[in-house]
Amino acid sequence: MPELRHDPIQKRWVIIATERGRRPSDFLKIEEETSGGGFCPFDEGNEDKTPPEVMAFRPSNTAPNTPGWEVRVVSNKFPALRIEGEIDRSAEGIYDKMNGIGAHEVIVESPHHTMSLADQPIEQLEKVLLAAQMRLDDLMKDIRFRYVLIFKNHGTTAGASLAHPHTQIIATPVTPRTVAMELESCREHYHVKERCLICDIMAQEIKQEIRVISIIDGMIAFTPFASRFPFEVFIAPIQHSHSFSELSAGGRTALARILKDVLTRLKISLNDPPYNFMLHTSPNMQTKARRPGYWLTLPYDYHWHFEITPRLVKIAGFEWGTGFYINPTPPEEAARYLREVEIKP
Amino acid sequence: MPELRHDPIQKRWVIIATERGRRPSDFLKIEEETSGGGFCPFDEGNEDKTPPEVMAFRPSNTAPNTPGWEVRVVSNKFPALRIEGEIDRSAEGIYDKMNGIGAHEVIVESPHHTMSLADQPIEQLEKVLLAAQMRLDDLMKDIRFRYVLIFKNHGTTAGASLAHPHTQIIATPVTPRTVAMELESCREHYHVKERCLICDIMAQEIKQEIRVISIIDGMIAFTPFASRFPFEVFIAPIQHSHSFSELSAGGRTALARILKDVLTRLKISLNDPPYNFMLHTSPNMQTKARRPGYWLTLPYDYHWHFEITPRLVKIAGFEWGTGFYINPTPPEEAARYLREVEIKP
Repeated sequence: MPELRHDPIQKRWVIIATERGRRPSDFLKIEEETSGGGFCPFDEGNEDKTPPEVMAFRPSNTAPNTPGWEVRVVSNKFPALRIEGEIDRSAEGIYDKMNGIGAHEVIVESPHHTMSLADQPIEQLEKVLLAAQMRLDDLMKDIRFRYVLIFKNHGTTAGASLAHPHTQIIATPVTPRTVAMELESCREHYHVKERCLICDIMAQEIKQEIRVISIIDGMIAFTPFASRFPFEVFIAPIQHSHSFSELSAGGRTALARILKDVLTRLKISLNDPPYNFMLHTSPNMQTKARRPGYWLTLPYDYHWHFEITPRLVKIAGFEWGTGFYINPTPPEEAARYLREVEIKP
Repeated sequence: MPELRHDPIQKRWVIIATERGRRPSDFLKIEEETSGGGFCPFDEGNEDKTPPEVMAFRPSNTAPNTPGWEVRVVSNKFPALRIEGEIDRSAEGIYDKMNGIGAHEVIVESPHHTMSLADQPIEQLEKVLLAAQMRLDDLMKDIRFRYVLIFKNHGTTAGASLAHPHTQIIATPVTPRTVAMELESCREHYHVKERCLICDIMAQEIKQEIRVISIIDGMIAFTPFASRFPFEVFIAPIQHSHSFSELSAGGRTALARILKDVLTRLKISLNDPPYNFMLHTSPNMQTKARRPGYWLTLPYDYHWHFEITPRLVKIAGFEWGTGFYINPTPPEEAARYLREVEIKP
């Protein structure tokens, strides 16, 4: 069972994978492994090489774990956290820990090995988003989980260990520090102004226009004022909404369209760069009773969004030591380059 | 002039290098550039290829910016922040920014191109530490600077763009988020217990023994309980001290010895891994008048330390999205491997 440990100085949680226990010699081989051979467990026809499917969009005349699917969700074969058991919080002297309960799933976005998200038809992207939403809703029913992160690693530099297009889902038994920080900023802003911080930011972006990449059916994509990374993109619904769960079918179509638009612009202008995306949405409201202060004004003060971060620059000692970032491309210029990309219909 | 911008959601500062303004095409060439040719501006004899030296340890019969030096400090040729000008804080609607005033220097650790810190004699390491201390003290006299970060990128994976052994210094006009977080945790602990959090942590480490790598002349090296990275190491003086400036000549010798010990253990067991180190020390106490709450109990509540983080695993969407880390090597095992390394005298 992995262990969650809390750092009392940096106030962050770390997952210590006690079972894998990588030795020094294991790290010398990693590069070779990831460049990998020709076999892919996510390809159509290899359904028995993954854990059984959690859900799939497939014709009703096909059986689970057989070919014919369009989008498939499976448990991660090497999960960072384990689904079985009760959460056990304890202290070790000055330190805090808990057992590593959680969920770790993979959305295989397509049966095609080389069909990246940018190249998918809108309908396929909508299915991926619907699968993400359904898994989010299902995992949030589990009161052990405080937060569910939906994220993507595209390209080995961005941490992808398999090239086949996929998105990951990790449910955690604590609200992660990054999300807690956002919730706090948004709550503080709301308590002073009775307005959503992210709504306010988007209103200014729409007015200033200089960092907007595209606006499609009520969704906006822009490069954040204080972008940490070159060509970082923020995508959110213009109308206030605290949770990705609230997204309607029409909203999914709009999100699919703007995601495809932005990913295509990044792919063309930066030659298919490695990137990560992360969905930030409300934590599990069911756990409200345990930590009431956190959620008091939550439907009003938080605003779900996607962050897309191309991995074009190395993160080094200065960034790790300070939490500061050095971004060599002003977001205004990044937005202009991305706007100028010509997209063939 | 670079610009410092504040992210209102994540409450972090970002340096936007407005002058460099890297375009999409620039990112496609980076890999080639860093693998670089045979010329090194830090080699002895190439003193005129760097900005003029800020200080150097050299025989008195040699002139500045000529060969003969042992340790040499120069301004960074491509500084992230600029030294000239007054700090100008302003708002842009909902956002905050200031001009990018700061300092960016490089300590060239040796005239020898391939002599890494682990291979240096103790006396040379002491000189590097003394140079770091002298630059820290000098930069802290400048009331515009709130914090001075001393850090090292070793190996291209860790962000080093030049192979010649060097340490960097960046002075910033705000206290970085990571340090502010540590100051806050330490202050909270002190206000409740009237004890230093880091002193308490080290007392437990010395008692438990399982994560200690070495103790040398009052300095301790251990793998943190909630290590973010495999083989992460924390080095600090056992006796309370809030600032690296307080380190005596004897303390420098002890620190040089334990640094060499740990870097040698990492080099042998992990085959010269890429790594970063970061010094965390008190911010500029001179600026106390501006933000009194911050420093009230500072000499007692904070404890300077080095963090050494080998770069053995990729950081991906989950880590960026949550601030959580997944560490595949329990720190107890990492400490055991490092303790077991046989060091030839």
